[in-house]
Amino acid sequence: MAHGYAARKDEHLKRLRRAEGQVRGIARMVEEDAYCIDVLTQVAAVTKALQATALNLLEEHISHCVAEAAAKGGPDADEKVAEATAAVGRLLKL
Amino acid sequence: MAHGYAARKDEHLKRLRRAEGQVRGIARMVEEDAYCIDVLTQVAAVTKALQATALNLLEEHISHCVAEAAAKGGPDADEKVAEATAAVGRLLKL
Amino acid sequence: MAHGYAARKDEHLKRLRRAEGQVRGIARMVEEDAYCIDVLTQVAAVTKALQATALNLLEEHISHCVAEAAAKGGPDADEKVAEATAAVGRLLKL
Amino acid sequence: MAHGYAARKDEHLKRLRRAEGQVRGIARMVEEDAYCIDVLTQVAAVTKALQATALNLLEEHISHCVAEAAAKGGPDADEKVAEATAAVGRLLKL
Repeated sequence: MAHGYAARKDEHLKRLRRAEGQVRGIARMVEEDAYCIDVLTQVAAVTKALQATALNLLEEHISHCVAEAAAKGGPDADEKVAEATAAVGRLLKL
Repeated sequence: MAHGYAARKDEHLKRLRRAEGQVRGIARMVEEDAYCIDVLTQVAAVTKALQATALNLLEEHISHCVAEAAAKGGPDADEKVAEATAAVGRLLKL
Repeated sequence: MAHGYAARKDEHLKRLRRAEGQVRGIARMVEEDAYCIDVLTQVAAVTKALQATALNLLEEHISHCVAEAAAKGGPDADEKVAEATAAVGRLLKL
Repeated sequence: MAHGYAARKDEHLKRLRRAEGQVRGIARMVEEDAYCIDVLTQVAAVTKALQATALNLLEEHISHCVAEAAAKGGPDADEKVAEATAAVGRLLKL
């Protein structure tokens, strides 16, 4: 079965590779003794980029997997909703 | 129509009133010149409590409003998913 | 000894009382069965307001208590820095 | 001038390279159509790891650059405190 995010997979991969490059850039900054505040600014930026990607994946997950399970109803529907909510809780660090 | 969170309304109200009391307590701490770090600790606690309540409301919203719209399908389903995702984005401050 | 935030105490109290009113408003929204997404939006807003107040308190704390300890040096300086950093960690929920 | 974080540079680099590997792992998960919720869990983990590194850098920055400026006093002291606080604000996405 194709997952909810299959349609926009290339877009997600592109953003994740950019985030990977950003983290590598942060390591290079530390390597080259960049000013601490500038390093923190980059950490804030990549964190935001990663969470934005997560939010997009979540949207597709809800509109496909959760919605499908919800349409069928039953315990699987509840489970899918609980699982998605728990994932949001982890992103919010609750 | 009753909203998704109707069943656990009393529980939500109880938690929100506790959070309100916590914020009032923080104001009292500042009023009485409490140590700054202790004030910050209380802010972190009430923030976490409020977000936990938000997460519970979200779970009920997805399992009722979003699931109902998803079962019917069509543009309303997409809209409900986008709306819930945008709300998560605001909680994540994206 | 007056704490670092004494000078802007009135401002902090004003913001905290506004936040308290916002939390009370959220409870009223739940009481009156407001739309879930609108409740979440208000939770995001009050969370942000509380963290902004915390950030102001932190700034004054660093420029007074931490700076004073740093000027004297010794183990108390390290302790104050560690304490402030731990408070930031709690706000970031790390 | 050596920056505040010079002493623990190797440790920071090690953690940042681990984070880089984690982001690469997330891209691979998406590439291989991993389950969405598992991808979100990894995003939450790497986000937390990056923020923890940022917090360590901040601690060293306060105990070196900010403390030094504070010991000298004057406008540079205020500026360093404001700069560090603004960096915390970006991490908190305020």
